[in-house]
Amino acid sequence: MIANNPPNASYAELERRFARLSAVNRAGAILNWDRSTMMPDGASEDRADQLATLNVIAHEIMVAPDMPDLLACAEAASATLDPWRAANLREMRRSWAHESALPADLVEARSRATSACEMAWREARKNADFKALLPTLGEVLAITRRIGEAKAAALGVSLYDALLDEFEPGGRAVHIDALFDELRGFLPDLLGRVLDHQRSKPAPLALDGPFPVEAQRRLGEELIRIIGFDFHHGRLDVSAHPFTGGTADDVRITTRYDEADFSQSLMGVLHETGHGLYEAGLPRDWRRQPVGNARGMVLHESQSLLMEMQACRGRTFIDFAALRMRQAFGKGGPAWTADNIHGLYTRVAPGFIRVDADEVTYPLHIMLRYRLERAILAGDLALADLPGAWNDGMRELLGVVPPDDALGCLQDIHWPDGGWGYFPTYTLGALAAAQLFAAARAANPGLLASIGAGDFAPLLGWLRENVHAKGSVASTDEILTTATGSALGVAAFKAHLESRYLPA
Amino acid sequence: MIANNPPNASYAELERRFARLSAVNRAGAILNWDRSTMMPDGASEDRADQLATLNVIAHEIMVAPDMPDLLACAEAASATLDPWRAANLREMRRSWAHESALPADLVEARSRATSACEMAWREARKNADFKALLPTLGEVLAITRRIGEAKAAALGVSLYDALLDEFEPGGRAVHIDALFDELRGFLPDLLGRVLDHQRSKPAPLALDGPFPVEAQRRLGEELIRIIGFDFHHGRLDVSAHPFTGGTADDVRITTRYDEADFSQSLMGVLHETGHGLYEAGLPRDWRRQPVGNARGMVLHESQSLLMEMQACRGRTFIDFAALRMRQAFGKGGPAWTADNIHGLYTRVAPGFIRVDADEVTYPLHIMLRYRLERAILAGDLALADLPGAWNDGMRELLGVVPPDDALGCLQDIHWPDGGWGYFPTYTLGALAAAQLFAAARAANPGLLASIGAGDFAPLLGWLRENVHAKGSVASTDEILTTATGSALGVAAFKAHLESRYLPA
Repeated sequence: MIANNPPNASYAELERRFARLSAVNRAGAILNWDRSTMMPDGASEDRADQLATLNVIAHEIMVAPDMPDLLACAEAASATLDPWRAANLREMRRSWAHESALPADLVEARSRATSACEMAWREARKNADFKALLPTLGEVLAITRRIGEAKAAALGVSLYDALLDEFEPGGRAVHIDALFDELRGFLPDLLGRVLDHQRSKPAPLALDGPFPVEAQRRLGEELIRIIGFDFHHGRLDVSAHPFTGGTADDVRITTRYDEADFSQSLMGVLHETGHGLYEAGLPRDWRRQPVGNARGMVLHESQSLLMEMQACRGRTFIDFAALRMRQAFGKGGPAWTADNIHGLYTRVAPGFIRVDADEVTYPLHIMLRYRLERAILAGDLALADLPGAWNDGMRELLGVVPPDDALGCLQDIHWPDGGWGYFPTYTLGALAAAQLFAAARAANPGLLASIGAGDFAPLLGWLRENVHAKGSVASTDEILTTATGSALGVAAFKAHLESRYLPA
Repeated sequence: MIANNPPNASYAELERRFARLSAVNRAGAILNWDRSTMMPDGASEDRADQLATLNVIAHEIMVAPDMPDLLACAEAASATLDPWRAANLREMRRSWAHESALPADLVEARSRATSACEMAWREARKNADFKALLPTLGEVLAITRRIGEAKAAALGVSLYDALLDEFEPGGRAVHIDALFDELRGFLPDLLGRVLDHQRSKPAPLALDGPFPVEAQRRLGEELIRIIGFDFHHGRLDVSAHPFTGGTADDVRITTRYDEADFSQSLMGVLHETGHGLYEAGLPRDWRRQPVGNARGMVLHESQSLLMEMQACRGRTFIDFAALRMRQAFGKGGPAWTADNIHGLYTRVAPGFIRVDADEVTYPLHIMLRYRLERAILAGDLALADLPGAWNDGMRELLGVVPPDDALGCLQDIHWPDGGWGYFPTYTLGALAAAQLFAAARAANPGLLASIGAGDFAPLLGWLRENVHAKGSVASTDEILTTATGSALGVAAFKAHLESRYLPA
C-alpha cells in the first residue's frame, strides 16, 4: 500500500514551493508571449526588467538555503510516495541541480542580455547586418558559456551536454553524434535520389495568390480546430518568429503571414498546434508541479513534427484539406487539386531558411547549427567568423550559399535568445515523430482513413495516452520505448522518407 | 548641501526592494491587461493563480521582517536625502502602512476572489442576472470589509476612509461629503435649466451609421496620435470595460466599439488617452520607485476628464475633429457639421449608464454609487437588496429607472473587482479637471486656439510640468494649489458647466 499514502512533510513543503515557482514561470511565459506579439517596441527595456526580476525570484525560490535539506529529507522518506510523487521529487531534484549551479547574478544577467539581444536581432535581421548583432550576441555567448561551465561542474558532464540537458533531460552529445552520423550516412544519397525522382515528373503548379491574411487566418483556425486545438484555452496570433508559448491552460501559438504564399504559414500553424496539443494534454492533476511539465524538447518537437510532417503533409490529410483551401481562397483549377497540392507540400529543394525547409533537407540545416554552436562554445570558432563558417557549411551540406546574413546566420532567434544546445532537438524530434506515428498507425490500422475524414480523435487519443499524459513521469527513451517498442533511432524516419519521397 | 548627497544605506536598500516590488507590480499590470483583452476564457483560473502568486510575492517584499527597521533608520537619517528621495521615503512608508496592515491570507484571498468575481460579472452582466453574481460578490465584499477593518485600525481612520485612501492618498469621506453637498446644491437646478435650454433649440441631427469598427479604430488612433499618445510606448485594444493599464513605458488603453455609434467609443478613447498621457509623463528618473507613481485617482481621473470633457468636447476641438470624422466614415451633409456634432457631444440627458453619461448628470451617477457602497460597507444595505436600492436611487437622482440590472447595478466592474471606495474619485477628478483646464488657459491665452489647430503641445506641456512630472512628490491638494492657486473645489466645475451648457 505504498501508493496514495499521505506524502511526507518535506515533500509537501516542496510541492508548495514548486507550485509558487510554477506560477511565477507561467506569468513569465505570458509576458514573453506578449513581448513577441503585442508589446510596443519602446517597452523592451521595461519588459526586460520585469522578466529579469521574475527570473531572479524564481531562482531564489529554488536556491533557498533550506532546499537541500528539504530535498534530502523528502528523498529519505520517498518510500511513502506514490509513483507520480516519487517522479515529481526526482524532477524537483533535477531542476534544483540545474538552478543551484547558477549564481543569481548570472540569472539576471542572462535575462537582461537575451532581452537586449533579441531586440538587437530583430533590427539586425531586418537590415541583414550581422555586425550590429555582435556586441549583444557576444554578451549572450559569454554568459551562456559561464552558465555551461557552472552546470558542467555541478552535473559532471561536458559544457555542451550541460546546456543540452536544460532542453532535453538526459540528452548527450555522444548520442546525438551517433544518430547524426547515421543520418549523414544515407541522407545525401537519399536527397540525390529524391531530386532525381522529382526531376522525372512534371513540377507541381504554383498556387495563384495573393492570399489575404484574414482568409489565411480563418483557414488556419478552421483546420486546427478540427485537429483539436481548443480556443477556450488558447490563441493564434502573429509574431516575427513563430512559437508556442503561454501555459497548458492558455496555449499561445503564433505564425507569420505572407500574402504571396499561404502554405508555409498554414503548415507552421499546424506545426505549432502539435506543440500546443502536447501542452494542453499534460496531466491535469500535475499542472503546477515539475512532473506535470513536458518531458523535454525532443518529445515536444516530435509532437509538432508528427502533426505537421507525418500527419498533415500526408496524402490523406491533403485530400481532406484541399477542398477547404479552395473554399478559403475561392480558387479552383488544376493547381488546386489534392494531387498538385500534395506535390507542393512534399517538394524537396535545398534552400537557405531552416523553418521553410522540407523534411529531407531539414536535418542538414540542424547539423550545420549543431556543428557551429559546438565549435563556438568550445572556442574553436570566433563569433565574428560565424557568417563565413555558416556560408561554408551551407555550401558543403546543402549546396547553396545565402546572399546575405538575413538569409543566413541571422535567420534564427535561438542564439540571441540564449538557446544554445537547443537545435539538435529538432532533428531528434523528427526521428521520434516518425517512430511515434508508425506506432500509432500500427496500433490503429484505421488511423490514416480517419485523418482523411478530418477525424483526428484516434490520433490525438493515442498521443494523449502514450505521450502527453505522461508529463515527465518517465524519461524520453522510456516513454518512446513503452509507446513504440524501442528507444530513439533513425529507422522509422528513414523508412518514412523513402516511402513518401521515393514511391515504388 | 543637503540635496544630491549620497542617500543613506537603509534608504538605498529600500530603493532596491521597491524597485523589485515595482517590477512585480508592472508584470502584474500587463497580465491584468491581457486577462481583459487577450486571454481565452478557459484560462481564468490559471491566470488567477498567477496574479495571486505575484500579489503574495509583492506583499512579502513589503512586509519583510526588517522593513520597519529599514524605514525607521532611513527616516532617522532623512536629512541626508534630497527632496525627491525624502518624498520617496514618505511614499514607501505610506505604502508599507497600507500593506503591513494586511495578513498574507487576505492578499491572496482578495486576488482569487476578485478574479473569480470578475469572470462571474462578465456572465451576469451578459444575462442581466444579478443573483448569479451574489455568491462571488459577497465573497469580495466580505474580504474588502476585513481589509478595510484591518487598515482602519492601522491608519486610525474609518473603514471607508481606509479603503478610499488606497486610491486617493489623504482622501477622506468628510471632504467628499462637503464637496458633494455643494454639488447637490446646484446640480439639480442646473440640470433643469440645461434641459429647458436644450428644449428651446432644435435637437441635433443623429449621425448616420453604420460605422465600421476598422474605420473607428483608425480615427481614434489618428486623433490620439495628434494629442500626443505614443504608440512606441503603448497600444489601443478592445475590452468589455474600457480601462488604462500597463506601465508608464507601455501604456495599454482599451475601448469597445459599437458599429451603430462611434461617438461613445471615440470619446472613451480620448478619455483613456488622458490617463495614458499622465502615466507616460510621470518622472522618468523615478519610474520604478513609489514617488514616481501617479499621485492618486483624483488626479488620474482629472487627466482623463480634462482631455475628454474639457478639451475634446469643447467647440474648438470639435471644429478640428469634425473634418476628420467626415473623412473617416466618408460622410457629409447637415448632420456632419462641427456645429451639429458639437451639439451631439454636449447633449445632456439623464440615462442609465455611467460611462455614457454627460458631464452634467455624471456626478449624480457617482453620488448614487458613493451612497450605496458606504451603506453596504457599513452593513446598512444587504447586497441582495442592491438592485432595489439602485433603482430607487436612480429614480430619485436622475428620474429614470433601468429596465434590468445589466443597465443598472451590474454595469460597472468596480465592485466585483474589489474597487470599493473608488467611485468618488471620478467626480473629484471632474472638479480637478475643470480647475486645471481653467488654470492652463489662464497661463496660456492661446491654448484653445492651438487645440483648434490640432496642436496639443501647449496643453500637454503645461500638464507635464504642473501635474505629470510631479509624480507623488507632493499631495493632490499641494499639486492643485501650486498649479491653480487653490485646493480642490467646485467653483471651476460649476463655471465650466454654466458656460458650456447655458450660454448667455
